[in-house]
Amino acid sequence: MRFTSQTSTDGVTERSFTLGELPGVLWTPDDAEPGALILIGHGGGQHKQAPGVVARAIRLAAYGFAAAAIDAPAHGDRPKTAEHDQIITEMRARMSGAGDPLPLLAEFHALLAAQTVPEWRSVLDALGNLGPVGYWGMSLGCALGIPLVAAEPRIRAAVLGLSGTSSASAEAAAGVAVPVQFMMQWDDELIPREDALALFDALASGEKTLHANPGKHGDVPAFEADSALRFFARHLG
Amino acid sequence: MRFTSQTSTDGVTERSFTLGELPGVLWTPDDAEPGALILIGHGGGQHKQAPGVVARAIRLAAYGFAAAAIDAPAHGDRPKTAEHDQIITEMRARMSGAGDPLPLLAEFHALLAAQTVPEWRSVLDALGNLGPVGYWGMSLGCALGIPLVAAEPRIRAAVLGLSGTSSASAEAAAGVAVPVQFMMQWDDELIPREDALALFDALASGEKTLHANPGKHGDVPAFEADSALRFFARHLG
Repeated sequence: MRFTSQTSTDGVTERSFTLGELPGVLWTPDDAEPGALILIGHGGGQHKQAPGVVARAIRLAAYGFAAAAIDAPAHGDRPKTAEHDQIITEMRARMSGAGDPLPLLAEFHALLAAQTVPEWRSVLDALGNLGPVGYWGMSLGCALGIPLVAAEPRIRAAVLGLSGTSSASAEAAAGVAVPVQFMMQWDDELIPREDALALFDALASGEKTLHANPGKHGDVPAFEADSALRFFARHLG
Repeated sequence: MRFTSQTSTDGVTERSFTLGELPGVLWTPDDAEPGALILIGHGGGQHKQAPGVVARAIRLAAYGFAAAAIDAPAHGDRPKTAEHDQIITEMRARMSGAGDPLPLLAEFHALLAAQTVPEWRSVLDALGNLGPVGYWGMSLGCALGIPLVAAEPRIRAAVLGLSGTSSASAEAAAGVAVPVQFMMQWDDELIPREDALALFDALASGEKTLHANPGKHGDVPAFEADSALRFFARHLG
């Protein structure tokens, strides 16, 4: 792992890194050893430094946690393959009315998950011990996070959501056993309500809690950011 | 309103009162004016000083809120009419396997609600201004609370749940416009899952948030008590 740049603002240090070809960012509190490390999986079409990712990372670091984000395959600074391009083009056509995009979305997510799960695990290896590990990911970040959380025993708690059985793997969800806070939007225009409920249902976790709020895919209320922080503090703090 | 007894423990004063024939309890913090008043609706077969009611009231008072509870009709120190007895006997038979108890439960709740809604309103009149008002009620406390919250403009936020459209009024829920936190148990043996989701759906509130947790009717996790307190603090504090 090679750190390529470093800035510090308001008590939080942000460092860009590369691990082989993989680009990522690590946020740490300046004034103390981190109490935990939260991996942040960005949403579809976003990247490791999308405004929502950075805002969440800074909030976590201000609380005393480290946070890390990487670009998912075909996102941010990472190349798209011909196969990625083909699926994305077809998905956009379907989202404009030419059919149901969900089966293609599921196929795309499965393709990316096969690649990103070992990548995240190599990041954990390279970062070393920054405390107990949590994962936060909505939408694409949930679809890719579920197989990661199922496969990686160092991850001890996860905030997931904005996804459903039609765009994420219910089989992988049945392998998730750690505490999960699962977010859904009651009027999500992308994820059918019953698919989101079915994905929550499929999680094998003994402690899992569903938070549903009115509004569309992008309308998760601001108070849920505090709620996620308290969830991690309860399980990792 | 006549206060009939008073005790003070650990900074919280508990006073029993009667308002006409109606018996109730008021909890207040000793060291400050209450920041808000939370009405607590007890569960079926319980009463105004059931352990869960008292524990919640003390927690609220420790935070700086007043709390009040009354016995629902046919509960606690209040008489059962012949009609109550008949419904309860038949409900118990059905819960032991002699048919579906839910239609009778809905009928029982409607009967009690018609009586308890004006009772709660008279309690609010008699208590005077103790700050903005919230309502907390699960199960029976939800079924009776929904028509109260819909009817009483002094109530500005409510924590409801452990109920569904088969045992509470969806029509009344469509009259609830204040922020609601709605609790459901994912494996509730009394309330069908789809009925609970439908009752949440029926609430007209612009801000409503569903918290679903695994387990049966009585298994709401302890961390949701903090969550309810934060909800009231956010809306009334």
